[in-house]
Amino acid sequence: MKDERSSFPARLKTNAVAVEALLETLLGPAVGTGEIARPANLLGAMRHGVLNGGKRLRPFLVAESTALLGGDAEAALRTGAALECIHCYSLVHDDLPAMDDDDMRRGKPTVHVAFDEATAILAGDSLLTFAFDIVAAPETALSDRQKTTLVLALARAAGHGGMAGGQALDLAAEKSAPDEAGIVLLQSMKTGALIRFACEAGAIIADAPAEDRRRLRAFGDKIGLAFQLADDLLDLTADAAIVGKATGKDAARGKGTLVSLHGQPWAERRLESLVAEAEGLLEPYGPRSAILAETARFIANRRN
Amino acid sequence: MKDERSSFPARLKTNAVAVEALLETLLGPAVGTGEIARPANLLGAMRHGVLNGGKRLRPFLVAESTALLGGDAEAALRTGAALECIHCYSLVHDDLPAMDDDDMRRGKPTVHVAFDEATAILAGDSLLTFAFDIVAAPETALSDRQKTTLVLALARAAGHGGMAGGQALDLAAEKSAPDEAGIVLLQSMKTGALIRFACEAGAIIADAPAEDRRRLRAFGDKIGLAFQLADDLLDLTADAAIVGKATGKDAARGKGTLVSLHGQPWAERRLESLVAEAEGLLEPYGPRSAILAETARFIANRRN
Repeated sequence: MKDERSSFPARLKTNAVAVEALLETLLGPAVGTGEIARPANLLGAMRHGVLNGGKRLRPFLVAESTALLGGDAEAALRTGAALECIHCYSLVHDDLPAMDDDDMRRGKPTVHVAFDEATAILAGDSLLTFAFDIVAAPETALSDRQKTTLVLALARAAGHGGMAGGQALDLAAEKSAPDEAGIVLLQSMKTGALIRFACEAGAIIADAPAEDRRRLRAFGDKIGLAFQLADDLLDLTADAAIVGKATGKDAARGKGTLVSLHGQPWAERRLESLVAEAEGLLEPYGPRSAILAETARFIANRRN
Repeated sequence: MKDERSSFPARLKTNAVAVEALLETLLGPAVGTGEIARPANLLGAMRHGVLNGGKRLRPFLVAESTALLGGDAEAALRTGAALECIHCYSLVHDDLPAMDDDDMRRGKPTVHVAFDEATAILAGDSLLTFAFDIVAAPETALSDRQKTTLVLALARAAGHGGMAGGQALDLAAEKSAPDEAGIVLLQSMKTGALIRFACEAGAIIADAPAEDRRRLRAFGDKIGLAFQLADDLLDLTADAAIVGKATGKDAARGKGTLVSLHGQPWAERRLESLVAEAEGLLEPYGPRSAILAETARFIANRRN
């Protein structure tokens, strides 16, 4: 029997290439999607924002949670691409001068630097809107019921009760430091919501029972917490050249994290227990879930 | 027989009140929509952006095109509210310093003035996202097929091949004046796309034949052109106190419009023929379509 664990980096890479290729096609010159015209400059800014060589971790989670439950891989790829549009729009807007004011991301100029601020705002808006286009489009081979479920779950993960709400809490945290519960809520919304959706999406795409959807969502919750904790550790310890963006920013802004609150050793122990809890949630699926378990460990141990 | 024409202002007002009440509820403190938490400041900015006492013309078009074809009024109201969220998000982002840099709208401070720039960006993002939440939510009593069709049409009307693309063309027009075809394309995307959707939505909600959907979309196209032409005339002639926002801006920016290209008398004749063409498209529906015909005349003759 093939050891699925050893193929994790290859599968992550393969899926990232497929996501990049799909986004390249969807935002390429050849596609007409019922629009009147697609202004070249705006399209260029959207491409700059989304075709950025990212790890495509969220689409990978969609793909693997779908595969776990026997869903359609092509539909998972399209849903993953939609999710990546939303993740990347949030980065484009987050980098704006009025928000985090970052000039570089993944070693490239951010969208408002490469284009201009107005174009970056519109490119973010357009990527967000396009996510719903991709899910609802006829090319996504799912039932209308599945599409409606995905649209609703995605809108709630991304909106004012999810990611965007978490960003608003993040802005507020720079003015008045939240307590531990406040930090957990902020992170659960800002970073957690899209990761939970990514895992939950597999159950929707596979038309799996509600119990699977709950279980994968809980798994997404654990790895989302791990993701943020690893991020906070990286911000504290890592080299900007490795991470590809400015580090040490949290401390410089006096922004509280669980790491600053409890210290690095606590954070490392907590990461281990989150991974264990995530693996525990996968138990009913047996060896088939090895890739998702490995993803949880990768997220906890990532160095960029 | 009741003269439906005379009831136009009352119906416009009644629908606006219903839209405002629904948005007030949807963005009120009492509603839990599957979110984790809704940060008060962000919610306040969203409310400031969308509960602005507008005419709610787009929701009215959804309501009346739905009524014309016998669709469900409550579903039309919810779809109209979703559309208004998108219209209002575009105003919030358009008013930002990096875009049009407007301090006032409808006699009130714009969102980035009343709150701050970062919050205005997030409030716009959240209103845009919430539109898809509203359409896909279980409370919208439509089939999943209808919801998917609405989501797709709305995303395309709002996205880079529609409204957002039109805004990008508008930015470009300030640097290099477009020719007549360029102006028409810009307006067809920036203003026209949402108005076409508003009319087309009625056919989707009523589950009407494709011919009705095409016809209402064509009607939306005519009144969208009329809307923009009336807007350009207003910008040239009206008093800022009546319009409620800065006027004369197009000329001040050297921005070409069809009015600046062909003059006011031409524009007034063109408005008349657009109304006639719009009315012609309604002919098969007989007297039932009187309200929509009156809406076309209202749009052409509006003074604010």
